[in-house]
Amino acid sequence: MEVTKEWREHFKQLRAFDEAISLLYWDMRTQMPEQSAPLRAETIGYLSTEAFKRQTSESFASLLERMADEKDLSDVEARSLEIAKTQYERNAKIPHNEYQAYVTLVSEAETAWEKAKEQNDWDMFAPYLKQIIEFQQKFAEYFGYEKHPYDALLYDFEPGMTVELLDELFASLRDELVPLIQQLPKESLSLDWSMPADVQETICHDWMNVVAYDLSRGRLDATVHPFEITINRRDVRITTKYDEADFRNALFGTMHEAGHATYEQQIDPMLDELGLGGGASMGIHESQSLFFENFIGRSEAFLRRVYPKLQSLHPAYAAIDFDTFYRGVNEAKPSLIRIEADELTYSLHIIIRYELEKALIQGTLSVDELPAAWNEKYKEYLGLDVPSNAKGVLQDVHWAGGSFGYFPSYALGLIYAAQLTETLKSALPEFETLIAEGEIEPVKAWLKENVHQYGKRLTPNELIQQVTGQAISVQPLVRYLTKKYQTVAK
Amino acid sequence: MEVTKEWREHFKQLRAFDEAISLLYWDMRTQMPEQSAPLRAETIGYLSTEAFKRQTSESFASLLERMADEKDLSDVEARSLEIAKTQYERNAKIPHNEYQAYVTLVSEAETAWEKAKEQNDWDMFAPYLKQIIEFQQKFAEYFGYEKHPYDALLYDFEPGMTVELLDELFASLRDELVPLIQQLPKESLSLDWSMPADVQETICHDWMNVVAYDLSRGRLDATVHPFEITINRRDVRITTKYDEADFRNALFGTMHEAGHATYEQQIDPMLDELGLGGGASMGIHESQSLFFENFIGRSEAFLRRVYPKLQSLHPAYAAIDFDTFYRGVNEAKPSLIRIEADELTYSLHIIIRYELEKALIQGTLSVDELPAAWNEKYKEYLGLDVPSNAKGVLQDVHWAGGSFGYFPSYALGLIYAAQLTETLKSALPEFETLIAEGEIEPVKAWLKENVHQYGKRLTPNELIQQVTGQAISVQPLVRYLTKKYQTVAK
Repeated sequence: MEVTKEWREHFKQLRAFDEAISLLYWDMRTQMPEQSAPLRAETIGYLSTEAFKRQTSESFASLLERMADEKDLSDVEARSLEIAKTQYERNAKIPHNEYQAYVTLVSEAETAWEKAKEQNDWDMFAPYLKQIIEFQQKFAEYFGYEKHPYDALLYDFEPGMTVELLDELFASLRDELVPLIQQLPKESLSLDWSMPADVQETICHDWMNVVAYDLSRGRLDATVHPFEITINRRDVRITTKYDEADFRNALFGTMHEAGHATYEQQIDPMLDELGLGGGASMGIHESQSLFFENFIGRSEAFLRRVYPKLQSLHPAYAAIDFDTFYRGVNEAKPSLIRIEADELTYSLHIIIRYELEKALIQGTLSVDELPAAWNEKYKEYLGLDVPSNAKGVLQDVHWAGGSFGYFPSYALGLIYAAQLTETLKSALPEFETLIAEGEIEPVKAWLKENVHQYGKRLTPNELIQQVTGQAISVQPLVRYLTKKYQTVAK
Repeated sequence: MEVTKEWREHFKQLRAFDEAISLLYWDMRTQMPEQSAPLRAETIGYLSTEAFKRQTSESFASLLERMADEKDLSDVEARSLEIAKTQYERNAKIPHNEYQAYVTLVSEAETAWEKAKEQNDWDMFAPYLKQIIEFQQKFAEYFGYEKHPYDALLYDFEPGMTVELLDELFASLRDELVPLIQQLPKESLSLDWSMPADVQETICHDWMNVVAYDLSRGRLDATVHPFEITINRRDVRITTKYDEADFRNALFGTMHEAGHATYEQQIDPMLDELGLGGGASMGIHESQSLFFENFIGRSEAFLRRVYPKLQSLHPAYAAIDFDTFYRGVNEAKPSLIRIEADELTYSLHIIIRYELEKALIQGTLSVDELPAAWNEKYKEYLGLDVPSNAKGVLQDVHWAGGSFGYFPSYALGLIYAAQLTETLKSALPEFETLIAEGEIEPVKAWLKENVHQYGKRLTPNELIQQVTGQAISVQPLVRYLTKKYQTVAK
């Protein structure tokens, strides 16, 4: 077989494994009888191992070499080779037995973290975290880096991103956000956000219609922890959770997942057979979910369009005027829990975590010092006293799962989203009118043409540069938030 | 690794592949957006090929040899080896290129058959059937047989079954059934069997409760073509179709699939890691579905229990007395379509197909002669004129799919079910009282203990012999049908 054909065959097989594994996971979270859990975990384990073997086998190493020797690779084939080679080399650098020990540790750590959070007991989790950080430090050395060990870990989430750049971005973002937050009104609106689950479900489907998430190539189901999952390019599913105490969670959560899903649906399907399907990075992916959730979903134009229907389905809101609803949806105030934070204060939660995990990996902060350091930063950046580790340093699963370098993606998503939205609005000056009229297709087409179709063909940096003509910058986000919170707090 | 450990590891991996493939299939039929179909087919294809490779690889051949050299295999390990070896040898006997050509042919033949049936055009399908039969004849020679080439094909569905035995069983069954059928009343009851789908769904769930199909280790969903599918031993799912014109289809169809599923749920889970999970044969599996559908579901005891609830949910039946309902549910008369046939005439549909396919494989009947031969047998055995090939020889997909040797399983299922039921009733003389009182657990426990738990540990023949103390015999079925239709037609 020709080398490039064999190359594509490799990725087509991997895609098939991915489809099976994704479906096994989706089913586990939405359909499967609970008793099946241990066998399902075993099945996912076997298939994941099988897929991993294909990416690390000697025969794939030989294919990589033959591919590297090929003349006349197309641009996209060359990009495919570049990514696969880097990934292969990263995998090959970690000794097999260390990786096995690490996988076991992480699985135990997640269980320990769950209990530790439940019982507000930091000491239950700390020993695991220490070992995880030791592994991560070793892995960073194996992978190699130029300036900072944390750079080596960022690759898995945001290829090309560095501590040097993040320090600069996050410092200026923090300096701009803190005064904005200080100007927020102190009093709360205290609206009643409760709504029956079935009404939420109807409204979610209505909103999906308005943003034209293509349900003929997807599904919307209920789960405990909402997620988007790509079964294949023509089957991108999302889930949501109908929280009867606060309908904002389901409505905006669904918009968020629909943003991820629309990205996945609009990636050029041919890229799958080169391993270039999927988003450019976690940050770019998050920019698309946040674009749908915040830049469309929480915008005045969109909300004005959907509010009358919401009122008719939910009579408790019949007497609440649009301005109150709009301000309620966009209410911002410092809070302890990241996943409950509003779009104005959210980045500060991320910056805190970034600064802490960077120091942990560098070795300038110890695990024993971590809870106190966490609490200090929440006081300094958000003005809050952290009442317990459960509501502080133990709140997120990421560190227990060994995901060091993941947190920055969330804030990068906001930064990218604001940059892309500025460009989008200059390309489509009628953007707000389109949203107000429920004419989302030109927006989706612009995103497909300029962002989505590329998948992993461009690095995040290349993509942002190509679309906006500029490097990554926090200014568009600052402009957006400044303008918005002047209106909301008016 | 120890050989027996490696052996179990092989089957555990196969089980994982089976779970993934089954789930991909289930999802395709119940959840998947339609647009995903081509990619899903590709995914199932890749994973099936991967699973097949593991069963036919050189490394498995070597494992088979080492396993055969092992002393002190347990009984169950020896049985595992026996089945795996036979299957490996059968697979190895077919030249790879012939098998590939055959797979392609069958896939084209199924498409051709679908159109041929739709357009009532035998000539569209006949050329494919000729080629399929040529392949099947060749395969029979490759596999080898003692007396009849059809014996070689029966192995895939009913290991140990032969033409010699089937001829004897079916001849005596036919001779007993024909006079019974001739005594049936000529007039029809003409009840209105329509019912809204949501009421059918409620009743189906109610019936599942009465027969204690364990939905905590399964699911019941809607599909176009109902089926049972084992995701794993703790997740056995069934589907049904709510036909608003005739609720008997969904109600008894669900009972049928619940019978298959209960068998699968009660197989000893340890057998999966020896490749001995799953039913003893197609015939034994069918006996369990038919036991639930007919010997419980259509019994007076069961129906008396569930009828008041059905009447309360379906007021159109409030004025219809139980006897009329019971006779309606059990109404028997000769008909053209196998899948719509009642339990009295059903076996004749099977015997006709058996006689025809046996002759086709033997070469004593040609494909060109087949439609006329079909019509003659329907006249002779059921007294019916076949109005079109669409309602005759083209009605079933089995031959298009290359499943020669499959049809007898349906009638063997009835025969086995009647034998097992006679034994069950002598072990549990209070059987009918239990059913009437909705106390199904002792019945399920007896089935588990005597039939289900064994999976493929026993051959169908060994199983029937062990449970009933006798070889396969049509007499219990004849006794059951004679008694029942004396009552129904009274």
